[in-house]
Amino acid sequence: MAAPTCSIDALEAFGAALFTAAGMEADKATSVARLLVRTDAMGRRTHGLAMAPLYLAEIAKGSMRVQGEPQIVRDTGLTAVWDGDYLPGLWLMERALGVAMSRAAEHGLAAIALRRTHHIGCLAVLVKLAADQGFMAQIYNSDPAGRRVAPYGGTEAVFTPNPFAIGYPGAEHPVLVDICASITTTSMTRQTHAAGVQFEHPWLLDAQGVPTCDPAVLEHTEPRGSIQLVGGQEYGHKGYGLALMVEALSQGLSGHGRLDGPTRWGGNVFLQVLDPDFFAGRDAFAAQMDHLSERCRSNRPIRADRPVRLPGDQAAAGLAQAEADGLQLDDATWQQLAACADRLGVPLP
Amino acid sequence: MAAPTCSIDALEAFGAALFTAAGMEADKATSVARLLVRTDAMGRRTHGLAMAPLYLAEIAKGSMRVQGEPQIVRDTGLTAVWDGDYLPGLWLMERALGVAMSRAAEHGLAAIALRRTHHIGCLAVLVKLAADQGFMAQIYNSDPAGRRVAPYGGTEAVFTPNPFAIGYPGAEHPVLVDICASITTTSMTRQTHAAGVQFEHPWLLDAQGVPTCDPAVLEHTEPRGSIQLVGGQEYGHKGYGLALMVEALSQGLSGHGRLDGPTRWGGNVFLQVLDPDFFAGRDAFAAQMDHLSERCRSNRPIRADRPVRLPGDQAAAGLAQAEADGLQLDDATWQQLAACADRLGVPLP
Repeated sequence: MAAPTCSIDALEAFGAALFTAAGMEADKATSVARLLVRTDAMGRRTHGLAMAPLYLAEIAKGSMRVQGEPQIVRDTGLTAVWDGDYLPGLWLMERALGVAMSRAAEHGLAAIALRRTHHIGCLAVLVKLAADQGFMAQIYNSDPAGRRVAPYGGTEAVFTPNPFAIGYPGAEHPVLVDICASITTTSMTRQTHAAGVQFEHPWLLDAQGVPTCDPAVLEHTEPRGSIQLVGGQEYGHKGYGLALMVEALSQGLSGHGRLDGPTRWGGNVFLQVLDPDFFAGRDAFAAQMDHLSERCRSNRPIRADRPVRLPGDQAAAGLAQAEADGLQLDDATWQQLAACADRLGVPLP
Repeated sequence: MAAPTCSIDALEAFGAALFTAAGMEADKATSVARLLVRTDAMGRRTHGLAMAPLYLAEIAKGSMRVQGEPQIVRDTGLTAVWDGDYLPGLWLMERALGVAMSRAAEHGLAAIALRRTHHIGCLAVLVKLAADQGFMAQIYNSDPAGRRVAPYGGTEAVFTPNPFAIGYPGAEHPVLVDICASITTTSMTRQTHAAGVQFEHPWLLDAQGVPTCDPAVLEHTEPRGSIQLVGGQEYGHKGYGLALMVEALSQGLSGHGRLDGPTRWGGNVFLQVLDPDFFAGRDAFAAQMDHLSERCRSNRPIRADRPVRLPGDQAAAGLAQAEADGLQLDDATWQQLAACADRLGVPLP
């Protein structure tokens, strides 16, 4: 079945209907569906509606909670710890960002550490929510149930890829940095393995710590290998430092992590919102950063056909196009969604 | 002249005497000397007392101010912007960390953006000041007068290496992550060039954007090349993201940066202190992070003779050894220091 081109609104309504049919409360279903569709529109297809069948499977086995509120473990007004109890991660993050933004607007900065969220999806989409309103937002994310990345010089996986993101306002659209501590990610490795191909570069280590292009070493050999840290064997102490930074912020501050040995797919998060108006001001911030963006965009490129871009440029272009022309998912994703819709009695858009 | 082995106290007093003789106020001279000697003890010799002759030269030409206070551009209680007016960076940072720590102890977190500091030295030494007292500290640093790193896909240097650091308490000593957005640094490139050798890997780009091991391209060819971003040509979008993150925090928030076209050696900083007691608590933080550290240290190493370490382990060992046995600088540094001492009429230790 070929995927049709649908409007963003239609896809959002479809996604929300799927989650609602699976028992999710309406506000959560709407939030998750909207953010997944925005993720697709911004070009991050692995983390868009392709996630919905996985989320629905988690709901079916009781691993993603669909009703209720996070538990507020601690709240001092500027700092907080929430226990997400495996509620939908995108909804939790949208709510936490909203709280942090209102506090940052009053005090200049605010931070929330979250433990036991379900999957929080694409970080760039989340920091954009704050950057669109003039804030600078940072998100650090790890999953203490996952082990895919070894410490520098080691052979046994300890960390997840540990993504982190920063978003800040730009002249036409926000700058959205969304990177991680390892060279590649779990989903890229799975995709590469599923496609039956090798990575172009040795981005993994086998169980002996030998660099390899073979994605099978991550989950299909015993003993298992690992994904290489940013910097690989040459300067992997840098990726190691990033991995530790993300774990300290997301697990240390939330007081939950690998020590607890969780086994459910989930996440720990540290999120922070800063308001430039409590520093040198939004205008001064914009003047500096727009000048920097211009110096990057006008930089003489290595390849004439590949101008230098800012992270966030592609996302903005994709979003504008999807808003104008609608969005077409890939056929494989569409087939999976159609099967879910059939099972749940939800009409296709 | 061979460098003698001196006690840490003797080296600190010697350093302070040099700066005082050059006109620096006593509190500043003491702070800068103490932090430089600690840097040496922690093994970061390029940023230790080897910096003193450079600082003294800056003082002599009026480029480092030696008296006075930073200007408080803005202060909301939790967020602040300071103009350092090119006062000694280490002293400014020690003071800013002290202010941020006392505020974080009261509110859970505090941030200060600094513009126009002089060189702030080794970030690991600075975050250690806060981590030793149970805080988590983050420092992001750029120099808008420097251009050594090009945006990903570009050929013209725009950024400095943009170091950043995070320090947090550990069971025996703090974990100290101190890394940057580029593969190598300006000082490593200068050292390599001065030694007349090449890098082992192509960590630079020539002016056309071709990877090269030749350190000369950074400052000794026209047009100049650049230092490669973390990730190089394979995944340099990650280093690019880090570079932008550091610029946004240190220049955007302080409202001063490349737009102003400064030409003096200096720095912009964003520093933040978090108190784990305002999140899940210091005990919970320690339990999680010490467990993680143990899993790293006990990780089966790739090479049996190279056990996995935590960043900060070497620094702690070096500091303990220097405290017990004293410290011997390298002969070249000692000769430069002795020449400064002779000129300023300061006795050698």
